[in-house]
Amino acid sequence: MPEPADFLFVHAHLFTMEGDGVGYIEDGAVAVRSGRIIDVGPSTALSTRFVATEVIDASHHALLPGLIDAHMHTPWAVVRGVAQDVAHWMQKGLAPYARHLHREAALAGAWLNVLEALKAGTTTLGDYAHPIEGWADVFAAVGVRAVLTATINALPPGQMANWGIGELYPLDDVVGEQSIRQAVDFAAEWHGAEDGRITVMYGPQGADMLTLDQLRHVKRLAAAEGLMLHMHVAQGDREIDQMLKRYGKRTPAFLEQIGYLDDQLLAVHLTEATEDETAQIAYSGASMVLCSGSIGIIDGIVPPAVAFRSAGGLVALGSDQAAGNNCNNIFNEMKLTAIFNKIKYRDPTVLPAWQVLRMATIEGAQAIGMGDEIGSIRRGKKADLILVDLHALNLMPVLTAPIRNIVPNLVYAATGHEVDLVMVDGRILVREGRVLAVDEAAVREEVQQRAQEVADAVKRDPVHLDMALLQAMEEGNL
Amino acid sequence: MPEPADFLFVHAHLFTMEGDGVGYIEDGAVAVRSGRIIDVGPSTALSTRFVATEVIDASHHALLPGLIDAHMHTPWAVVRGVAQDVAHWMQKGLAPYARHLHREAALAGAWLNVLEALKAGTTTLGDYAHPIEGWADVFAAVGVRAVLTATINALPPGQMANWGIGELYPLDDVVGEQSIRQAVDFAAEWHGAEDGRITVMYGPQGADMLTLDQLRHVKRLAAAEGLMLHMHVAQGDREIDQMLKRYGKRTPAFLEQIGYLDDQLLAVHLTEATEDETAQIAYSGASMVLCSGSIGIIDGIVPPAVAFRSAGGLVALGSDQAAGNNCNNIFNEMKLTAIFNKIKYRDPTVLPAWQVLRMATIEGAQAIGMGDEIGSIRRGKKADLILVDLHALNLMPVLTAPIRNIVPNLVYAATGHEVDLVMVDGRILVREGRVLAVDEAAVREEVQQRAQEVADAVKRDPVHLDMALLQAMEEGNL
Repeated sequence: MPEPADFLFVHAHLFTMEGDGVGYIEDGAVAVRSGRIIDVGPSTALSTRFVATEVIDASHHALLPGLIDAHMHTPWAVVRGVAQDVAHWMQKGLAPYARHLHREAALAGAWLNVLEALKAGTTTLGDYAHPIEGWADVFAAVGVRAVLTATINALPPGQMANWGIGELYPLDDVVGEQSIRQAVDFAAEWHGAEDGRITVMYGPQGADMLTLDQLRHVKRLAAAEGLMLHMHVAQGDREIDQMLKRYGKRTPAFLEQIGYLDDQLLAVHLTEATEDETAQIAYSGASMVLCSGSIGIIDGIVPPAVAFRSAGGLVALGSDQAAGNNCNNIFNEMKLTAIFNKIKYRDPTVLPAWQVLRMATIEGAQAIGMGDEIGSIRRGKKADLILVDLHALNLMPVLTAPIRNIVPNLVYAATGHEVDLVMVDGRILVREGRVLAVDEAAVREEVQQRAQEVADAVKRDPVHLDMALLQAMEEGNL
Repeated sequence: MPEPADFLFVHAHLFTMEGDGVGYIEDGAVAVRSGRIIDVGPSTALSTRFVATEVIDASHHALLPGLIDAHMHTPWAVVRGVAQDVAHWMQKGLAPYARHLHREAALAGAWLNVLEALKAGTTTLGDYAHPIEGWADVFAAVGVRAVLTATINALPPGQMANWGIGELYPLDDVVGEQSIRQAVDFAAEWHGAEDGRITVMYGPQGADMLTLDQLRHVKRLAAAEGLMLHMHVAQGDREIDQMLKRYGKRTPAFLEQIGYLDDQLLAVHLTEATEDETAQIAYSGASMVLCSGSIGIIDGIVPPAVAFRSAGGLVALGSDQAAGNNCNNIFNEMKLTAIFNKIKYRDPTVLPAWQVLRMATIEGAQAIGMGDEIGSIRRGKKADLILVDLHALNLMPVLTAPIRNIVPNLVYAATGHEVDLVMVDGRILVREGRVLAVDEAAVREEVQQRAQEVADAVKRDPVHLDMALLQAMEEGNL
C-alpha cells in the first residue's frame, strides 16, 4: 500500500550532501510531506513506495539542498554598486548613503535582496541589520528560511561619514543600551516564528563597536537564551586599529579575554586574522563565515577559510552587502571561494568544487547551528530543495562517467539563473525561475523609487563631496 | 528631411567606450544602417534625424559595444568540466579526452560554445582550434564575428596522455609541416570571408610545440600576409621547463631571439612571465590576452596583465577552454579579472570596473588589431551592439548621481543572462535572450550525444586510469 506524499521528485541527478562527499544518487528521488523530507532513494523504489499529490520530473536537473547564505546585509541592496574600487570603502563609499537610508529604502533593499537570493537558489538567509519595523516581515512574507541578527552597536547614528581615518570613533552608552534592548525585543518576537522558519542570533556588530560592558552583557544574554552570537571579527585594518588603540590588543586576543571564543560564536570575515589567530578561533569551537566576493572587492583579501577548516573549524559562505559585492548569490560565492583560494595558495587542488558545495550546504548549516535540520537531503530534515537545469547551455553536456562533471560545472559555470525551482519547508517558492507569491514588478518599482530618494538626499548632503568615486564620475569612468 | 536607418536604438544608458573612460551618454541613441553605426548621440536629436525601419526602445537597458573574447578553444566545450581541481590539468585531466575528441564532437563543442558566448553578449570570438572541416562554418552560420586561428603544432596526435611529467615531448617534422600547410589553406579560404566578418590569425600553439625552423617559417608567412600571430606564451611551468631543456632559454628570451616580439604578436597567458619579461613583451608592441578564469582554475595564478598595461601594452580578455574554466562568458572574465588583481596586489583600487570593461571592448579590439572597426560605439564602426537589461534584480537599482552605479554592477553583479539583445554587423542575432536563427534544442541534443560518445571512448581507453579526478569519483566527491 503506497504512502501519501505532497511532492515526489523523480529522475534527478541527486546530490544529498550526506556522508563526507556530495552523496550522489543517479536517477534519484525525494519524497516530501508536511514540510519534511520523508524519503530519499532511487526513483524506481520511491515511485512505487509513494503516491504524491504532485510528481515533479527532475530529468536533466540537479536536485540539491537549498543553499545557505550565512551573512547578508539586505537593506544595502538598495544602493547596490556605490562602494567598490575604492580605499576605505565604508567611510569613503558607504557612509554618505548610510546617513540617508531611511526605513522604506531599507525595506526595499531587503525585498530586492531576498528575491535576488531566492531566485539564485538560496533558501536560508542569514541577514544582519538594524531591526526596523517590517524587516523580518519581508522574510515571513516571501517564505524563505531566515536567521536574523539585529545589529547591536553603540555608534551614534549618521556619524560614520565623519570618522577620521585612524581616529577612535565615539561609542555612546545610551545608544548601545538602546540597541541591546531592541535586539532583546526582536529576539522575543521573532525567534522561532513562522513555524520555526525564522530564528534569531544576537549581533554585537564588532568588538570595536560596543563598550566592554555591553559586549559582556550581550554574551550573557545570548548564553542565557541559547542563541548564537553573529559578529564581525578582525574584519579590516580599521577594526584592528581601533582595538589596538582602545584596548591594546588585537581582536582575537581581546575576544578570548572576554570569553567570546566558544561554539556559540559565528565569526564573520577574519580578514585580518593571522594563521595563529585563525587556528585559535577554530579550536575554540566557533564557526566562520567567509564572504569571498565582498572582501575580495572591498579589501583585495582572501580570508583564511582554508586555515580555519584545517584547524577543524566549520565555514559557511556569505554574500555580505551589495553596495560593494555587488550581488548576493551563493553560486557566485562558491566560484569565487574556490578560485580565490587556489590563487592564494598557488595550487589548483585547493578547495575543489565539492568542498565549496559543502560549505554552501551541509557545512554551512552546521556552522550556523542548524546541521540537524537543513543542509543535506536526508529523511526527517526540512524540505529545503532546489532544482538546477543542467540543460542550460553553460552547464552542458552532462557526463557521469568516467568523470562526473556536474559538481564542477555547478561551482565554476553556473550563475544562479539556472535554478528552476526552489522549495522551502516543503512549499514551492520559485518555479520556472519565477517567484510565485510575490509581485516582482512592484518590488522593482519600489526599489527604484526608494533608491532614487536616497541618492537624491546624498546629492544634497555636502558630506557626499568626500566620496572616493566622485573622481571617477568626473573623469568619465562611471 | 530625415535620413533612413535600419535600426534606431533610443533611450539607452549608452556606454560608447569612446575617449579614455566609458563614454556615457544619458538617454542615448544609436542609428544603424547597412551593418554600420551611422550616428550616435542623444535620443532627442537622433529621433528627429532618422526614420528607422525598426525603433528599439532601450529604456532601462545599458547599450554597449559587443564584448570581445580574444581567446577560446570552442571544441573543448563538449567536455566541459572534466579537467579542474587537479595538478597537471593538461596531462592528467584533458589528455584522455583529447585522444577521443572526434570531428563531430569538436563541432558540437563549437556550436555549444558559440551559442553560450553569444547569449552572454560576446560578439567577437577569437577561436583557436584544429581547422577541422566545418569549424569555421559554425561561426558563419550563427552570424557572430570570428577571428579564427588554426592551431599549428608538431605534436604527434593522441600522444599527450603519454607525456611524462618533466620529459621533453616529441616534435615531429612531418606533423608540423602538415599543420602549417593546413593553416595556410585555412587562411586562404577564410580570411575576410562573410563580408569580412571572419578573419584569421596564424597560430603557432607554443614555442615548445613546433621546431625552430617551423616557428621561423610561420613568422615569415604571417608577416607576408599581414596576419597576426596568436600564440600561447609562457603558459605554464610545463612550457618553461620544455624551453629550458630544449633551448636553454625561457620563452620570452627565446621569442626575442627568433624575432617574434613585435606588434604582430598576440601573446596569450604569460602565466609564468616575470615582471621584466612581461615588460619586455609589452614594450615590443605585442598585445596580451588575459584568461583569468581558466588560469585561476588550472594554475591558481593571476597573470601579469596589470604589469603589461603599466608597460604600455594592450590587454584583451579570453575565456579559454571549458574543460577547465568552465564557462565562456566575458562578464565572468571581467569580474574575475577585476577581483583577482585586487587580491594579487591587496588593493581594492586596482583594475576598477571601467578598466576591465575597456579590456572587454575597445582595448580588446585594439589588442587584436581591430580597434578601427569594433570595440566602441562610434559613427562608421561596425554595428556590434548589445543591450543589457538593468531591471534584472541583480542589477537594480539604476542610479546615475551622485555616483552612477551601472558599470560597477555590469562588472561585479551581471552574469551574462541579463543580455537581451545582441547585434552583429547590424543584424540581430539574439532577442529577449533567445538566439533567433539557430535551433538551440537541436544543438543541445547533438552536444549531449557527441559528448557521451567521447566519454564512452575515454572510459574504454585504459589511459583514463591515470586521470587525477578518478580518485574524487571513487571518494564520492563528484
